[in-house]
Amino acid sequence: MSLLDQLAAIVGPGNLLNTAADMAPYLVEERGLYHGSAVAVARPGTTAEVAELVKACVQDSIAIVPQGGNTGLCGGAVPSDGALVISTERLNRIRAVDPVDFTLTAEAGCVLASVQDAAAEVGCLFPLSLGAEGSCRIGGNLSTNAGGVGVLRYGNTRDLVLGLEVVLPDGQVWNGLRALRKDNTGYDLKHLFVGAEGTLGIITACVVKLFPAPRETATALVALPDPAAALAILGAARRASGDAVTACELVPRIGLEIGIAHVPGVRDPFDAPHPWVLLVELSSSRPGGLKDALESVLTEALESGTAHDAVLAQSEDQRRALWKIREGVPEAQKKEGGSIKHDVAVATSRVPEMIARCTPAVEAALPGVRVVAFGHIGDGNIHFNLSQPVGADKAWFIAHWERMNRIVHDIVADMGGSVSAEHGIGMLKRHEMARYKSATELELMRRIKNAIDPDGRLNPGKILP
Amino acid sequence: MSLLDQLAAIVGPGNLLNTAADMAPYLVEERGLYHGSAVAVARPGTTAEVAELVKACVQDSIAIVPQGGNTGLCGGAVPSDGALVISTERLNRIRAVDPVDFTLTAEAGCVLASVQDAAAEVGCLFPLSLGAEGSCRIGGNLSTNAGGVGVLRYGNTRDLVLGLEVVLPDGQVWNGLRALRKDNTGYDLKHLFVGAEGTLGIITACVVKLFPAPRETATALVALPDPAAALAILGAARRASGDAVTACELVPRIGLEIGIAHVPGVRDPFDAPHPWVLLVELSSSRPGGLKDALESVLTEALESGTAHDAVLAQSEDQRRALWKIREGVPEAQKKEGGSIKHDVAVATSRVPEMIARCTPAVEAALPGVRVVAFGHIGDGNIHFNLSQPVGADKAWFIAHWERMNRIVHDIVADMGGSVSAEHGIGMLKRHEMARYKSATELELMRRIKNAIDPDGRLNPGKILP
Repeated sequence: MSLLDQLAAIVGPGNLLNTAADMAPYLVEERGLYHGSAVAVARPGTTAEVAELVKACVQDSIAIVPQGGNTGLCGGAVPSDGALVISTERLNRIRAVDPVDFTLTAEAGCVLASVQDAAAEVGCLFPLSLGAEGSCRIGGNLSTNAGGVGVLRYGNTRDLVLGLEVVLPDGQVWNGLRALRKDNTGYDLKHLFVGAEGTLGIITACVVKLFPAPRETATALVALPDPAAALAILGAARRASGDAVTACELVPRIGLEIGIAHVPGVRDPFDAPHPWVLLVELSSSRPGGLKDALESVLTEALESGTAHDAVLAQSEDQRRALWKIREGVPEAQKKEGGSIKHDVAVATSRVPEMIARCTPAVEAALPGVRVVAFGHIGDGNIHFNLSQPVGADKAWFIAHWERMNRIVHDIVADMGGSVSAEHGIGMLKRHEMARYKSATELELMRRIKNAIDPDGRLNPGKILP
Repeated sequence: MSLLDQLAAIVGPGNLLNTAADMAPYLVEERGLYHGSAVAVARPGTTAEVAELVKACVQDSIAIVPQGGNTGLCGGAVPSDGALVISTERLNRIRAVDPVDFTLTAEAGCVLASVQDAAAEVGCLFPLSLGAEGSCRIGGNLSTNAGGVGVLRYGNTRDLVLGLEVVLPDGQVWNGLRALRKDNTGYDLKHLFVGAEGTLGIITACVVKLFPAPRETATALVALPDPAAALAILGAARRASGDAVTACELVPRIGLEIGIAHVPGVRDPFDAPHPWVLLVELSSSRPGGLKDALESVLTEALESGTAHDAVLAQSEDQRRALWKIREGVPEAQKKEGGSIKHDVAVATSRVPEMIARCTPAVEAALPGVRVVAFGHIGDGNIHFNLSQPVGADKAWFIAHWERMNRIVHDIVADMGGSVSAEHGIGMLKRHEMARYKSATELELMRRIKNAIDPDGRLNPGKILP
């Protein structure tokens, strides 16, 4: 029996795709940066089928690329020549929801929004939330340790997971699908697979934490002289609200202006132009008092001069309008021509210094470049994006990608920061690992890879340089 | 130069202990279950000295046992023949406290209470809190992933750490001392060393998260018909308080009674005897409203019959008195003769079932045994302790330790639980690993151990069976 026949026998003929047309959507990624190829795409329906697929690949020495919703931004799910893509899309059952335990058990192929919905149905919150939530899958969120807008209060995906079920590179199934809040019995294996981008095993199911659903939300937009003021307001809001700040997003003047120019619904709520605006959102399952808490923080900030102006959303429509300012930035950047992107993080308290160092450095290196530094300042995570000079040629500008990366990443690394805060490494930043990770750290990672996947079968060519 | 001379040259002669008298406190553990021996005890003052010590041990093929405050309960820090103990006690500097960043950088030998104090000085909370906090050291807390009473709201020690500095088994220093909230650049190494009980590396420093200091606390003792009622109240309190429940501790009737009998200050605040009492504490940095929230939860519970009675602390003295009931249990158990202990966890929602299954099983196997099942029900973590039958011989009772363990642990394992929720494995539960971990999981752990510490130099004889 040929390999393809064997694979088809495992998943059923309809779930083994191997024509160019059928495979096409699995071979490219979101931004079109990478085009892969594969021997086939298998869509298993059970963990046992995943294990059988892996064993068949071991026997035939075939590489395996696990794939969830294929919404990643670093090429981590794009297959290379001769690999089998294992798509988790049919592993899409919510196995259990337990509102007493505040846990949910989901298979890897569940779309993130469906996990959120299942939690909401029992009055709970699954707080992971990001742009792709309508199509990304929870297994991919786990494999990339996805970030998003709720990290400040609830942590990264890693912090939301209690247990995992994983098919290992030799086809064994590790059943670590535990719903335990405390378990000190040996090495923590789940944290190895979370964020490993499918290079150590194929996550097939998970137990995640749920939280009480918020019943009050308070949202404000604050006009600021500089990013340091944002941190002062964040600290004050954390203290005043019982740590209920669930979003803290910075937008520079230019981000607001290009939004107004290109994105319907974006408008400046302030009379005067301010160099920075900050979106602050508090939410809590304890009803009452949150708006007052936020208002008193803002009043104090205005009186002390930390803030220049502020608006508090008085309705859900007003709240949506304020969020639109933040959400409009990447959309508007696309309309402004080429963008060179940096998904960087430093210690939260050092974000102002990072922006202050990186901005003149890139402006000096590429006159006319427009810095659009925005995003999750509460996590120390800034999308330090560069829009092309007005009127420049897009291709000419994009050709500076590596040079701009070098300038920004060198500064961030010098500050003890991360050159990939939330998007991961994949293929896009693999070469950066060689530059910014110590030899000691790379050696530790290689030893782990060799220990778990000695044949290098899983997702070759990703993460490790 | 002899090995001892070489080691003394690294740390200074006064910091290399090798007489029996000097070494004695480092060779025994808290409960006197294990007595170790060592070639010497070294007390390095810097990370570089730790690295030099390790290199010297590599050269002379000497095993190494890292030790913090030596307060562990599983023998994890007790050395075996011929090993060098590396005590972290002189690595006791708080390197940085950053209230804007909400982080603190501490060396491994800092006593936990001193870390708490340093956070409090800047208006912040370091939430790790446990009985030994006056003498345990943060490096030991990290190496054992310590639990304690704040886990429900803030997580285990693992969840509080952002970065680590670790001396590896070959003497290299891994500098992962980052203060980043987001960093998706390869495998998460810090989670490997946290909870590894010193078998993969020697943690020398850490960056931990801080939180806004609480400004309001609401504490109640609730009388309950059964443990299921405790979970109903926990869920309602989490929802009503904006997830501000910071402690949820169950005490059975017998726990209260032996407390009253043996521990000064313990008294029953209720008129009638109730089968269970629950200590619930809420705390928040947002002042105002927490007591009302708790009161409305309790009122509803009393009206629905979920709770039989309740008292809300009206002063700090009353609060201390309620806590005394919980804290008095282990103290009282000592006075009641022998105790056979189980530090187990199941999914929070299954605690009632676990208690209902384990209790008759041990009572049938050892007539007269008194089950004292108490503790962190909010984490699913119950100290399922057994007091000897009244009037029994202590030694006779303790001789049933293994038999009782087997009964309780078999039931807990059958329920997908953990046989060591917060205390770790050390030597005490090493044999349980062989029984309760799957071959797949043990193999993964062994591969990791071999990959990072191929010579088995670090803390031999711990964790892995």
